[in-house]
Amino acid sequence: MSSPNGAGGTRTVLAVDIGGTKFAAAAVTADGGMPVRAEVPLSAFASPDAALAEVVGRVTAQVGEDGIEGAGIGSAGPVDSVKGSVSPVNIPGWRDFPLVDAVSRMLPGRPVRLAGDGQCMALGEWWRGLAEHTPSRAMLGMVVSTGVGGGLVLDGTPYLGPTGNAGHIGHIAVDPGGEPCPCGAAGCVEVVASGPNMVRWARANGWEGDDAKALAADARLGHPVALCAFQRAADALATAILTAAALFDLDHVVIGGGVAAAGAVLFDPLRRAVTGSAGLGFLRRVRVDPTSLGRDAGLLGAAALVLPQDSPC
Amino acid sequence: MSSPNGAGGTRTVLAVDIGGTKFAAAAVTADGGMPVRAEVPLSAFASPDAALAEVVGRVTAQVGEDGIEGAGIGSAGPVDSVKGSVSPVNIPGWRDFPLVDAVSRMLPGRPVRLAGDGQCMALGEWWRGLAEHTPSRAMLGMVVSTGVGGGLVLDGTPYLGPTGNAGHIGHIAVDPGGEPCPCGAAGCVEVVASGPNMVRWARANGWEGDDAKALAADARLGHPVALCAFQRAADALATAILTAAALFDLDHVVIGGGVAAAGAVLFDPLRRAVTGSAGLGFLRRVRVDPTSLGRDAGLLGAAALVLPQDSPC
Repeated sequence: MSSPNGAGGTRTVLAVDIGGTKFAAAAVTADGGMPVRAEVPLSAFASPDAALAEVVGRVTAQVGEDGIEGAGIGSAGPVDSVKGSVSPVNIPGWRDFPLVDAVSRMLPGRPVRLAGDGQCMALGEWWRGLAEHTPSRAMLGMVVSTGVGGGLVLDGTPYLGPTGNAGHIGHIAVDPGGEPCPCGAAGCVEVVASGPNMVRWARANGWEGDDAKALAADARLGHPVALCAFQRAADALATAILTAAALFDLDHVVIGGGVAAAGAVLFDPLRRAVTGSAGLGFLRRVRVDPTSLGRDAGLLGAAALVLPQDSPC
Repeated sequence: MSSPNGAGGTRTVLAVDIGGTKFAAAAVTADGGMPVRAEVPLSAFASPDAALAEVVGRVTAQVGEDGIEGAGIGSAGPVDSVKGSVSPVNIPGWRDFPLVDAVSRMLPGRPVRLAGDGQCMALGEWWRGLAEHTPSRAMLGMVVSTGVGGGLVLDGTPYLGPTGNAGHIGHIAVDPGGEPCPCGAAGCVEVVASGPNMVRWARANGWEGDDAKALAADARLGHPVALCAFQRAADALATAILTAAALFDLDHVVIGGGVAAAGAVLFDPLRRAVTGSAGLGFLRRVRVDPTSLGRDAGLLGAAALVLPQDSPC
């Protein structure tokens, strides 16, 4: 099958990224190129299905449906990779939504694979991001955004787990018995460190802005409540990172998502907390970096789920 | 090489298990048989090296050194599988002790492999224990004893990590910022749930016994402080188990070690806490069982590290 984008022989797949507030899709080639990319805010559509149809339609309209050999999907978790369904905690409209079937209907006869958005971010970062130059044998990718997600790449292979839910770092307890989480547990990382929860905490403590971007801007200006909100998030994320490091013997953690885009106001206290709280020697080697790929990491990783075995992935 | 134990053609390896207070060794055959087994208390020897020499010597004296094709070692962590050294938190006399070299000198020219005691327990349990009958794709083995250790078997393969330290579940924080742990961090599972720390807490709260076995006996009789000590340990272990389940997408947890031998006074509150605190759906399938192999799980898993590739392991 020839590629529709002019690069003869290059295989092309559809990548889909279902976030808590935005849906993105792209055509991705086997060398990591992304000739077409589209993104829509979920809030602009009557239903998640309509948003999905729009964003995938925009990509297939440009690439030509025939040129697409398969689809990889990253979705906010939890996912059920056996059933091919998703129940994103932050999209109340979808519970056990048969996402693989929905995308398969758009691409009859072609393989469609599903993983968590954090898993895809990790895989994309491993394939085309920082890990390409500083190889990692045990890498955790995290998305800190509307929610907090994650994924593992172990010895070069994504570790997805028996039901596809490995890497759910947003829902480990850093404050057992603490504040309830929509997941049903309490004291989860996400309750402290997701963008909306950081904003909620800051507003309850007298800060008057509206979103995580404004919170980051105020933290950069030295606003004490904003700084404290980032310190709390950094402490929660550091505990989670050291926990994952103790369990997976991690060497590298790469963090993306809207909150991570805040830069030094997050990463400075985060690296201090990781270094300061590490006990056992093997935990001290863990590097913590912001993503080098931005939002594309998730799309590249989703594509890598279905790219041919002879690809670099 | 023929086996010295009468079973012609059966391969035999040496298994060594370095615990916090006891050293054990055994001859293990490829079918999981254990014709020779020896154990010594560390306290009876002037140095850990002397205890090691004694326990290994007892096994090789019976099996004949020539009949042993290699050695697998499980040691209290942390271990450095690259250097072949160990620094067990609970054996102050050993820091960066070159354990692989020490055992290699006893068995010149034969392979010697090292893993954590929890990793070996998990591998032994997966090979010859409960997992043999109820297959698991993501299993955590835990040792709750003088310390708290663990190991993972993922898709039938031990996951040891880049430096051999994966599965250090005793040193994840269940009470961040809490009581200091000898590992250098604070609020670790081990600070609450190890045998000596359970006893220490109970004594500080008015209980007058001496060890974890007495504490379990009193809990069975309804002693309120002893019951509370087990409840605290169960809560800490449940948080750790749910954390590992969220990260590895676990289906099975098997627990051994002296504290786990307490039985229902530990497992009843532990299973209640795991069920009661699980949020996301995929966490609710995790089974939690006591080991079916007792202390032999660690020796069998150590042996499995070097048994031939055509063995069931």
